[in-house]
Amino acid sequence: MFKDQSLDTFLDRLASADPTPGGGSAAAVMGAMGAALVGMVASLTVGKPRYRAVEAEMHALQAKAAELRQRLLAAIEADVAAFDRVMAAYRLPKDDPNRGEAIQAALKGATDVPLACARLCVEVIGLCHEAAEKGNPNVLSDAGVGVLAAHAALKSCAINVTVNLNAIRDPAFVAERRGELEALLDGRDREVEQLYNHILAKL
Amino acid sequence: MFKDQSLDTFLDRLASADPTPGGGSAAAVMGAMGAALVGMVASLTVGKPRYRAVEAEMHALQAKAAELRQRLLAAIEADVAAFDRVMAAYRLPKDDPNRGEAIQAALKGATDVPLACARLCVEVIGLCHEAAEKGNPNVLSDAGVGVLAAHAALKSCAINVTVNLNAIRDPAFVAERRGELEALLDGRDREVEQLYNHILAKL
Repeated sequence: MFKDQSLDTFLDRLASADPTPGGGSAAAVMGAMGAALVGMVASLTVGKPRYRAVEAEMHALQAKAAELRQRLLAAIEADVAAFDRVMAAYRLPKDDPNRGEAIQAALKGATDVPLACARLCVEVIGLCHEAAEKGNPNVLSDAGVGVLAAHAALKSCAINVTVNLNAIRDPAFVAERRGELEALLDGRDREVEQLYNHILAKL
Repeated sequence: MFKDQSLDTFLDRLASADPTPGGGSAAAVMGAMGAALVGMVASLTVGKPRYRAVEAEMHALQAKAAELRQRLLAAIEADVAAFDRVMAAYRLPKDDPNRGEAIQAALKGATDVPLACARLCVEVIGLCHEAAEKGNPNVLSDAGVGVLAAHAALKSCAINVTVNLNAIRDPAFVAERRGELEALLDGRDREVEQLYNHILAKL
């Protein structure tokens, strides 16, 4: 499992001529770092008398961030598996009557993995707002790094969804996925920039 | 060393109530992922007859990306060490006549580590342009994820520089570092957005 590799080894493999892991896995790691930083803010807020008023919310935030982190870590493996299926389909003999259909099915899978990852990143961005607003202000900067990581992950997923959609010949599938992606991205740049500026001003 | 920890363990420690590793280390990891993705594009370009015209440039890009990745990985440890020095200074007895000076010196160190990291991230962003323009177009999406990672890392460094500068009482030091940070950030949002949109359009 990639999550069991050392950071150094993971980055070596990312930089190698092996096409996996690639940008899709890097996006999932960035999203997971965003979730971990939300977890850090919550962990440094719970149990402190000064923040007793938000104790229950911070416990819930911690649990939600941990769950999203695990789902984003799972997306690293899912992305590699989906890409490997695309490669396997392209390697089928050119005269195999099922080759075209196998490629299309694999591309749909390789679209849905980063799309699911994008959904998780939007959830992490939402948690970053809560961490920044209600968490221990001494770790506000970590909430700021968290939202930047989750947002970069979201836009990275958008790239990976788009590159696959461009090769899919099912207009209904393409329109549906593109519509969901656009909804996930809509207004997000401005939202994140506002939170970033708000955090910078409050440091 | 943090770079020898598994991704899973690193993220667990990031999410824990231990203040290190925190956002500074996460920023360095994101920058290193950006550099690794540049390395991936170069690795999948060199040695292919079709890209012979850029072979020498891609070898140089690969070497430069590998060097920046190692320097960014080293910044993970440097960030933790600098933060630990700040914490140690704050823990000096309140009546220690050197306490104030020790805190200020530690804060200056904790400013210069993310500032150096920010410089490296700007270099990675520069390499992403080259990877996107001259590298194998089949991995253009990976150059896109790389620039998003490096840019999020740069802005994360800006947060960490700022939080330390805000506690430093040496106006000349503060003005000098803030000036350099502003120069590193100047025009970068627009530059990265343009490259991102260019890549999305070419996928």
